[in-house]
Amino acid sequence: MQGTTSATDTAETQAGAGNTAQALVVFTPSGRRGRFALGTPVLTAARQLGVDLDSVCGGRGICSKCQIAPGFGEFAKHGVTSRPEALSAWNSVEQRYKDKRGLIDGRRLGCQARIMGDVVIDVPPESQLHRQVIRKDADARPVAMNPATRLYYVEVAQPDMHDPSGDLERLADALRLQWQIDAVTAAPAVLRKLQPALRQGGWAVSVAIYRDHQGGPARVLDIWPGFHDGGLYGLAVDLGSTTIAAHLTDLSDGRVLAASGVMNPQIRFGEDLMSRVSYAMMNPGGDVEMTRAVHSAINALAWSVAAEAGIDTALIMEMVLVCNPVMHHLFLGIDPVELGQAPFALATSSALALPAREAGIDALNAEARLYILPCIAGHVGADAAAVALAQAPQESDDLVLIVDVGTNAEILLGNREKVLACSSPTGPAFEGAQISSGQRAAPGAIERVEIDPVTKEPRFRVIGCSIWSDEPGFAEAAGPAGVTGICGSGIIEAVAEMRMAGIVDAAGLIGSAAQLGSDRLIAEGRTQAYVLHDARATGGPLISVTQGDIRAIQLAKAALYAGARLLMDELGVDRVDRVVLAGAFGAHVSAKHAMVLGMIPDCRLDAVTSAGNAAGTGARLALCNIDARAGIEAEVARIHKIETAIEPRFQEHFVAASALPHASDPFPELAQVVTLPQVTHNTGGSGAEGGRRRRAR
Amino acid sequence: MQGTTSATDTAETQAGAGNTAQALVVFTPSGRRGRFALGTPVLTAARQLGVDLDSVCGGRGICSKCQIAPGFGEFAKHGVTSRPEALSAWNSVEQRYKDKRGLIDGRRLGCQARIMGDVVIDVPPESQLHRQVIRKDADARPVAMNPATRLYYVEVAQPDMHDPSGDLERLADALRLQWQIDAVTAAPAVLRKLQPALRQGGWAVSVAIYRDHQGGPARVLDIWPGFHDGGLYGLAVDLGSTTIAAHLTDLSDGRVLAASGVMNPQIRFGEDLMSRVSYAMMNPGGDVEMTRAVHSAINALAWSVAAEAGIDTALIMEMVLVCNPVMHHLFLGIDPVELGQAPFALATSSALALPAREAGIDALNAEARLYILPCIAGHVGADAAAVALAQAPQESDDLVLIVDVGTNAEILLGNREKVLACSSPTGPAFEGAQISSGQRAAPGAIERVEIDPVTKEPRFRVIGCSIWSDEPGFAEAAGPAGVTGICGSGIIEAVAEMRMAGIVDAAGLIGSAAQLGSDRLIAEGRTQAYVLHDARATGGPLISVTQGDIRAIQLAKAALYAGARLLMDELGVDRVDRVVLAGAFGAHVSAKHAMVLGMIPDCRLDAVTSAGNAAGTGARLALCNIDARAGIEAEVARIHKIETAIEPRFQEHFVAASALPHASDPFPELAQVVTLPQVTHNTGGSGAEGGRRRRAR
Repeated sequence: MQGTTSATDTAETQAGAGNTAQALVVFTPSGRRGRFALGTPVLTAARQLGVDLDSVCGGRGICSKCQIAPGFGEFAKHGVTSRPEALSAWNSVEQRYKDKRGLIDGRRLGCQARIMGDVVIDVPPESQLHRQVIRKDADARPVAMNPATRLYYVEVAQPDMHDPSGDLERLADALRLQWQIDAVTAAPAVLRKLQPALRQGGWAVSVAIYRDHQGGPARVLDIWPGFHDGGLYGLAVDLGSTTIAAHLTDLSDGRVLAASGVMNPQIRFGEDLMSRVSYAMMNPGGDVEMTRAVHSAINALAWSVAAEAGIDTALIMEMVLVCNPVMHHLFLGIDPVELGQAPFALATSSALALPAREAGIDALNAEARLYILPCIAGHVGADAAAVALAQAPQESDDLVLIVDVGTNAEILLGNREKVLACSSPTGPAFEGAQISSGQRAAPGAIERVEIDPVTKEPRFRVIGCSIWSDEPGFAEAAGPAGVTGICGSGIIEAVAEMRMAGIVDAAGLIGSAAQLGSDRLIAEGRTQAYVLHDARATGGPLISVTQGDIRAIQLAKAALYAGARLLMDELGVDRVDRVVLAGAFGAHVSAKHAMVLGMIPDCRLDAVTSAGNAAGTGARLALCNIDARAGIEAEVARIHKIETAIEPRFQEHFVAASALPHASDPFPELAQVVTLPQVTHNTGGSGAEGGRRRRAR
Repeated sequence: MQGTTSATDTAETQAGAGNTAQALVVFTPSGRRGRFALGTPVLTAARQLGVDLDSVCGGRGICSKCQIAPGFGEFAKHGVTSRPEALSAWNSVEQRYKDKRGLIDGRRLGCQARIMGDVVIDVPPESQLHRQVIRKDADARPVAMNPATRLYYVEVAQPDMHDPSGDLERLADALRLQWQIDAVTAAPAVLRKLQPALRQGGWAVSVAIYRDHQGGPARVLDIWPGFHDGGLYGLAVDLGSTTIAAHLTDLSDGRVLAASGVMNPQIRFGEDLMSRVSYAMMNPGGDVEMTRAVHSAINALAWSVAAEAGIDTALIMEMVLVCNPVMHHLFLGIDPVELGQAPFALATSSALALPAREAGIDALNAEARLYILPCIAGHVGADAAAVALAQAPQESDDLVLIVDVGTNAEILLGNREKVLACSSPTGPAFEGAQISSGQRAAPGAIERVEIDPVTKEPRFRVIGCSIWSDEPGFAEAAGPAGVTGICGSGIIEAVAEMRMAGIVDAAGLIGSAAQLGSDRLIAEGRTQAYVLHDARATGGPLISVTQGDIRAIQLAKAALYAGARLLMDELGVDRVDRVVLAGAFGAHVSAKHAMVLGMIPDCRLDAVTSAGNAAGTGARLALCNIDARAGIEAEVARIHKIETAIEPRFQEHFVAASALPHASDPFPELAQVVTLPQVTHNTGGSGAEGGRRRRAR
């Protein structure tokens, strides 16, 4: 978001101009350059030029954060000839550090190496204070580190009876002089640590200082005697209706050290959000019970990831939370009932920054801070804000539709000019719930389905097994549990394949075509069901897609499509340039099948991408960079919110979208589908491939 | 401290200048005046002119805080003829209020009465927002109300699906528009109350808003549906080594509703401060134990004063604490050991503003705030700062010496030009401790002593009994407990009277004068003791002043005197203009006897006054006015601190001051003593009076 490293400064800074013996120093990659008196430490020169060179100990040869890589030779580009003698000799501090911790050959400590002649000095990425976070998702924008909580090593003046002042006041003076940090405060619990730490550390301490992005006073969160090299950590938590995921992140470089997820324990109070709201309405104190359950789960997650990474939870100084509005209220202990009825008023929509303990999170450092991203509207939560932060539609040149599918779908549409947001009540069908053979995505769940359009025979793959059901060895590979049900992405594929094979008609009716006559169709009350897997003979389940399942998927996909269309209407567009599917569902659903079903509006198939857990990524960005917090708060205020519940056109789109389109329906892109690489089925044989080619013709 | 009421504005404000029909309004006592369109409510006019007229409900006829007293007739001074028809007719809102709560005849509600002609309007003191606190101590400066926590009634917009925003955000908008309060925050526990309060109150709520004096964000501490008329309260706590006193104060007008005191439960860990520091050093966890004990005691005091005043403790929104440095650390849970040894470094010396709960005080409102006055130095605490706040030496034209006597004496010396502070280790003798027959000030303790210089016979009075010991009915009046010991003020008088009667010589030796031969003198080891009261025959105590007692008083008074002299040396003066004796001891000690003993430097006896519990008064001032907080913080930074422990001259003064002067020594003022009215003994008969006259000759 910010980058002092990218700024260049062609005018040479004249430091100590009265000094006759000076040398020219050029820093790369920034290109910043200046003249300095001989003997100036490289770190000092870097600071004076505003070069992004890290240091925690303030140049005392303790922290080694200021490692530099001097370059020697002719640098025509910079007009400098840099000789080995341009830096002072390797010294004992550097040797001691190298012996103890190791130092890459050619590296020096910037606080020890002094400028003795013209020199070119490279600041390697890991020595940059605002170093970029490494992100796995390729399309994501890079982000620089700028966490709210940082570690500072300070040397504090000893008490003086002739000029009495408190230890905290002398620490504050030292922070002001040595780190330009004004006005620190500290809780009594931290004050208790200050006296012994100062005396044990010989009047030098390391302090974890929290500064918000709104100019509030700096706060000492913790204190260690001398130089603390245990690191500082943050926890990014994505609190979903069904699962809670936590990423333990190093606050110095943004690395994820451990990640873990658990089921949301509130599930025992209701599978979906509205049933939890009902629980709160029907059971006095029910919301308190649900709040406690989620606090316990997050505290346990914190212990678990810290144990996995081998760090002390007391070093977790910050937590960032993203979640939908109902989870947001239940987490904060606010009755969610208002969110279950018009006008869907949030108790608060702003971002929240507060002590984590105040919100029931006590597994972290006692003074740890909690940041909760802003909610966009009553149905569009902090999780949607986190998706917006990770995907930045407001920075997109082309028109992007971002869909985060869960029990509610959060939908963002926009580009540089305008961003719209809404939420659509898709229900839990996409998560495998309320589907007759549905289950959550877990081993044994059918996740991939193909149906031969001629024979109407299915083949499928289950989670945890790479062999298709019609291939040799499937029974063994699927394990003793075998095939247990259908997950969300499996039901999408099953219904889409049933439609493409003619088993389901455009209205969604199973077996309406007279000529079918497949023994895969069985009677299910007054309607029919399509059997995917029948293990009843061996005591296993009958796994089928019923007429009710089709209806549930029709309702869900119509809601999703209608929400997207509503935003498109609002912008006055008929097509979007690209579609991003966020969330676990988005990562696993096949774009082709989603489009066959009519879940998402027309778009080139190769312009449909998955963003993975974009909400979780947004949480980590907010953890690593306070500018990201300020940025998303400003952006959420700008986002145009649409309430689907009161838009008559939403109902119209919803009704119109309940039909199931087909490859020969107005989806010409589908003709290209089979040749696209992102159709990621592990094809087991040419038969299925042939079947699909036939469809595409 | 501040007074918008005292400002006058002779230029008439032209409000609504484009309106033809206008009337002239003059407000008294401020003298502010302006022209307003006919029909303008008086409250509106007052606000536009900056007149100090209170209102909690914002002009909705609910709170009645804006009562005004219109004056009718010729006002030559203001050039206005004010007729009864100059205000709109008495209306139903006013009648309803009068029927329900009562309204003084001639009063109107400023929000209901509208300006219909030229008029003079008086704002009675109780309708002034910055009304002055009524203080009992006559010499104290008046202070205007400006508490950190105030009540506001607001009407909040209802949620709108078309423009979604949270309840808190709409409350913030309303506070901004209706009360010019920016950027409010609220804890989760308060957010939980917001939704139901808004709906129950029909989208109107009363909120308690805390704003510090450093421009921090406004904070919602509590919320009530509709108009809350239960008041808001504050607790001023004077945490002494021996006793804890609490004053429950109404935050709207500064009235003390209830006061209570308890023994400091830390006494069981050590009578004096240094023995508590030792306890903390010798017993691991001992400081935690002492901290818990004092938190419990303060919580219990809060319950007790609230019960006495008949209010809910949840309406106590603020607490202000004053105490000495050791109590300060023990209250905050900070190990006090550093305060027991040079360089006497405080963990923090600044004022502290924090949630009361964070400091272990949970009997108040859950969001209640705690303010602790700054400490001046390692031995000069927040209690001394509170004395400075109450007595304001920095505003004194003459040179004032302020002495707060306890186990340590806090001493302030100064005037407008400069203020000095130090602390002197008097020990507990002045509190009746470490005196052979000593006891705390309680019924049965000897508090007044006279000794006939001829017969050497004593007479005395005990606390809780107005009859002198040599008067008829004393035994009955003193009650079954009878005479139990000597309190601090009693021992001062006893030693001073012994000196004046020649029983003790200038070196402090008892019975050195050969001709004494009184049977009141008894052997006490190798020294002698003077018997004040002997009830051994009836199983009662023998109460005497021993040689050891004299030595303890000599040490204590020498320390006090040396501290004061040290400050005088620093200022280069030989005399002070006046002396203020603060604290419980200061309230009871006889100025004459103190001066006979040489406790305080030379001064006219009538320039010695008692300030009562000045520390407690300072705490109440800080509770009632945030400007007082800002003021004392700035003043404490300016006060020149002297550390007695490292000043060689302190030792010199101390040694020189151990002698006991006499009426015929260099204290010419003592010649006038007996005729001065402030010698407040209840004289029981002419004999004693005659005795004293004889001495004075």
